[in-house]
Amino acid sequence: MRNICMRVNYDGTHYHGFQTQPGGNTIQDHIENAIFSLTGERVKITASGRTDAGVHAYGQVFNFKTESRIPVHRWCLALNAWLPEDIILTDAKEVPLSFHARHMAKRKTYRYSINPNRFPDIFHRRTQFHHPTRLDIEAMRRALQLMVGTYDYTSFASTQSQKLNHVRTVYEAHIEVDHSFSRPGSDDQGIIHIYVTGGGFLQHMVRIMVGTLMDVGEGKKTPEDIPGILAAKNRTKAGPTAVAHGLMLWNVEYDENVQKT
Amino acid sequence: MRNICMRVNYDGTHYHGFQTQPGGNTIQDHIENAIFSLTGERVKITASGRTDAGVHAYGQVFNFKTESRIPVHRWCLALNAWLPEDIILTDAKEVPLSFHARHMAKRKTYRYSINPNRFPDIFHRRTQFHHPTRLDIEAMRRALQLMVGTYDYTSFASTQSQKLNHVRTVYEAHIEVDHSFSRPGSDDQGIIHIYVTGGGFLQHMVRIMVGTLMDVGEGKKTPEDIPGILAAKNRTKAGPTAVAHGLMLWNVEYDENVQKT
Repeated sequence: MRNICMRVNYDGTHYHGFQTQPGGNTIQDHIENAIFSLTGERVKITASGRTDAGVHAYGQVFNFKTESRIPVHRWCLALNAWLPEDIILTDAKEVPLSFHARHMAKRKTYRYSINPNRFPDIFHRRTQFHHPTRLDIEAMRRALQLMVGTYDYTSFASTQSQKLNHVRTVYEAHIEVDHSFSRPGSDDQGIIHIYVTGGGFLQHMVRIMVGTLMDVGEGKKTPEDIPGILAAKNRTKAGPTAVAHGLMLWNVEYDENVQKT
Repeated sequence: MRNICMRVNYDGTHYHGFQTQPGGNTIQDHIENAIFSLTGERVKITASGRTDAGVHAYGQVFNFKTESRIPVHRWCLALNAWLPEDIILTDAKEVPLSFHARHMAKRKTYRYSINPNRFPDIFHRRTQFHHPTRLDIEAMRRALQLMVGTYDYTSFASTQSQKLNHVRTVYEAHIEVDHSFSRPGSDDQGIIHIYVTGGGFLQHMVRIMVGTLMDVGEGKKTPEDIPGILAAKNRTKAGPTAVAHGLMLWNVEYDENVQKT
């Protein structure tokens, strides 16, 4: 028996999220079917966490136990051959049998991308929220910093959240503006990428943080409103839930030693 | 009668190139049909130049004559509503009746993108040539500089070229390497973007330049071979024609005064 840990990138556009569900067509289903095609084994994979329908991943991590003797360096190419082209495995390694991709994830980073310009960005529209409204990016930066820390994030959680404890830690968050597709001389604001790193996230937490930042960017809220929104522990005080397709699971980090065989 | 000049971005993946042809489904067909839907006029648009099947554009320019009185600032949104989502008009202005998008284009820039890493880049695979071979980017840079100048580019033209004169001027060319999707610590080479600006290009010229640069990057040719390849005026001396989908018409420039009404 071996424990294999893999990294996967996916374009979530055409899938019903990561985790297996009755309707099928999830990332997990496709990967488990590819493993079956390759090895004849019916395994269950364990990811660092689920992603919602339409959300993308650049570096999702999962593990699974297998009896297969296929050398670890061959797993990616072999499984990619069985996967649709919008799901690509990029790394594989053998890890201790005790490794668990969800329980042992130390930090996760999400990226949310907003196109505030007049027209959709044709080459990136599937991974950007197109919201053609000029935004006050500096105000958004100040508001974002006020969301960093250890708080009860009830105001930033779906009311469907099943968790009893809504205290989470956001370690770091920042905004980068990409002008690589801005035409010189235009008043294009560029593409706004919001990165948020935390120890764990509540349902819709990043999307509600982004929806609130957009309210700040439009002047409907101010950075100074953020502490009060957190303190209220009331979902109705925060902004809307930003659309799923602007969100990407960007990175998952583990303690180095837990992944060493 | 007015002359309207517009800028258009398109993802060429699903089209048979820019220019109308018997098989249909070209960018030109879609734009002319949208103009008909909006105005009831059957116009012919004139682009800065054609692009081949599968080639993309970020800033293609075209013009057309119309009797329509629709204010110029409304053309983009109005026509985009009639266009598929992978063709997006971004600019419209009225220009002198004498303006001609092809004859008056002074400089055109193309970008060619190569992914030399092990796996396709899931979010950009439609605009990158995935060629999983480590490349010597510095050698490619030196070779590219030796292609800049005024030369007979017969060695870099399709043998189907109908042009009598193959002398062209390449004004400027450079390579940028984008690491925004390189994972820290990986030996990923990043994404290689090759930019080439010239006064005009022969059929397949940029793609053959790129195919030749890839031979240099792989060590099959050296930068010092380039002057001899140019001097030979023989297509067989250059490298292969790089695949269409890595190519993007990046910018078209005009003298400022010819576009002023």
